[in-house]
Amino acid sequence: MKVQIVEVGPRDGLQNESAIVPAEAKIGLVHKLMEAGLARIEASSFVNPRWIPQLADAEEVLKGIMPIAKKGVRISALVPNVRGLERARQCGLEEIALFMSASESHNRKNINKSIAETFPVLAEVAKEALALGMRVRGYVSTVFGCPYEGDVPVDNSRRVTEALLEMGVYEVSLGDTIGVATPKQVHEIFAVLVKDFTTERLAGHFHDTRGTGLANVVAALEEGIRTFDSSIGGLGGCPYAPGAAGNISTEDLVYMLHGMGYETGVDLNRLTEAGAYIQEQLGRELSSKVLKANLAKRKLDEHM
Amino acid sequence: MKVQIVEVGPRDGLQNESAIVPAEAKIGLVHKLMEAGLARIEASSFVNPRWIPQLADAEEVLKGIMPIAKKGVRISALVPNVRGLERARQCGLEEIALFMSASESHNRKNINKSIAETFPVLAEVAKEALALGMRVRGYVSTVFGCPYEGDVPVDNSRRVTEALLEMGVYEVSLGDTIGVATPKQVHEIFAVLVKDFTTERLAGHFHDTRGTGLANVVAALEEGIRTFDSSIGGLGGCPYAPGAAGNISTEDLVYMLHGMGYETGVDLNRLTEAGAYIQEQLGRELSSKVLKANLAKRKLDEHM
Repeated sequence: MKVQIVEVGPRDGLQNESAIVPAEAKIGLVHKLMEAGLARIEASSFVNPRWIPQLADAEEVLKGIMPIAKKGVRISALVPNVRGLERARQCGLEEIALFMSASESHNRKNINKSIAETFPVLAEVAKEALALGMRVRGYVSTVFGCPYEGDVPVDNSRRVTEALLEMGVYEVSLGDTIGVATPKQVHEIFAVLVKDFTTERLAGHFHDTRGTGLANVVAALEEGIRTFDSSIGGLGGCPYAPGAAGNISTEDLVYMLHGMGYETGVDLNRLTEAGAYIQEQLGRELSSKVLKANLAKRKLDEHM
Repeated sequence: MKVQIVEVGPRDGLQNESAIVPAEAKIGLVHKLMEAGLARIEASSFVNPRWIPQLADAEEVLKGIMPIAKKGVRISALVPNVRGLERARQCGLEEIALFMSASESHNRKNINKSIAETFPVLAEVAKEALALGMRVRGYVSTVFGCPYEGDVPVDNSRRVTEALLEMGVYEVSLGDTIGVATPKQVHEIFAVLVKDFTTERLAGHFHDTRGTGLANVVAALEEGIRTFDSSIGGLGGCPYAPGAAGNISTEDLVYMLHGMGYETGVDLNRLTEAGAYIQEQLGRELSSKVLKANLAKRKLDEHM
């Protein structure tokens, strides 16, 4: 049984780190992630650098990565509008990702538009991207809870997912943006959405803000989901609670999946290299437990 | 649906911290844990202080706790032999816990006896404790993997569990001592043991060394298990990989269980007080994600 991992550390992870990592180190990180066997990597974002200074070097990073991208590896970036799409095209990207929220207030805070106003903007980007022969992925945020509204009706997520798929998005990643989900809720929400859209069109994007990330992955696996987003080292944090944890860690996810008999194509030892590398660049201890355990074990082995 | 939590932070957590916490702070911690609604607390250990200097103050701690123990709260301590039992009795304890391993090499390293040689020692302790009217709990270590032997046949765990139950132990806690288990393995092993011993006699004791702790709890819940051990703040570490994570965090466990509709009797806000307290005593950031998220949120609220 195969599971696809979409590595979002260079984008979702680094955009929530307070330190700004130099472009060269970002390119080095993506190189190590490819060496570890990750075949889908979201490498940066074309959101206005005024909002996300951490990824202001998107062009430099992507122009450094594309020539060294291994065959079969899909590099993508977040694109908010047609201007962003043009920048992505100039970098030679063959895949982009669109994003919006399932809750009105989060969508407005994040995109400065209502959900209804966002649809035509994204539809235009999707149309042009598809005309350029690009793959287009979609993110829906706040599926499992909104920092402003609390609970989010599953029908909101259903409606936004449907709209994205109708635009030609090949896969919608359902996000627990603030990391509040528990396995029961994951079962309930995915059961509804899988029925409408099939497992092939959906991915799980869990944050580990309250430690439930991997338990939520298992619940989604049980609903048939086979694609998950994660960040190397558990990079990043929760933008609504600075100091709290971010995406689930790629190392922890891979460890668990392999233990459960799933194939990911990822080499866990090489993944540890990538985690150790970006941890050193950031100069702070990352939250990945497998990274900690593997580095601790290496230290022990060196002393024996 | 009710789930029982056995708080093992003051024992399993603190015995794996490098810092030695003063007895007064340990008593303060147990007080806060009781205030948060925890009804089963393993407060210390009567293992030789030469091996575990962190808990050398067992008498002082327990004599400080017992007079303030709330009605209905069960305080226990680890007891390796009849000498330990006598010390426990003098402290007024009404419950003790015995321990051994499912793997021969870990049992020998930890207890300095073979598994077969350990049985009569523990049987004597259990017999005397029961005669004193005490409750006796049992731990089986390395059920999901041994640091020396790797995989451990489920039949080893079955045999040791059976022996403990025959001694009069009321519940056996099955330990993932080195934190290697994944949900698939938890399903497989608990399915076998539940069949032989029933869910009422078994508990899950997971370490979060590789981030799979809560996912393993969900797997055990699905096998019918309703009692879990955890440590406030995710205290402690893995003795075989210093720097790696320890027990699953009580805060994270409670957050997830409540989200899944289980009752624990624990107040998560008060639990945060207990986590913040011991974190400050230790002077290091603990690994509990819910503790981090709650403290980050409080900081934000204070600034608004």
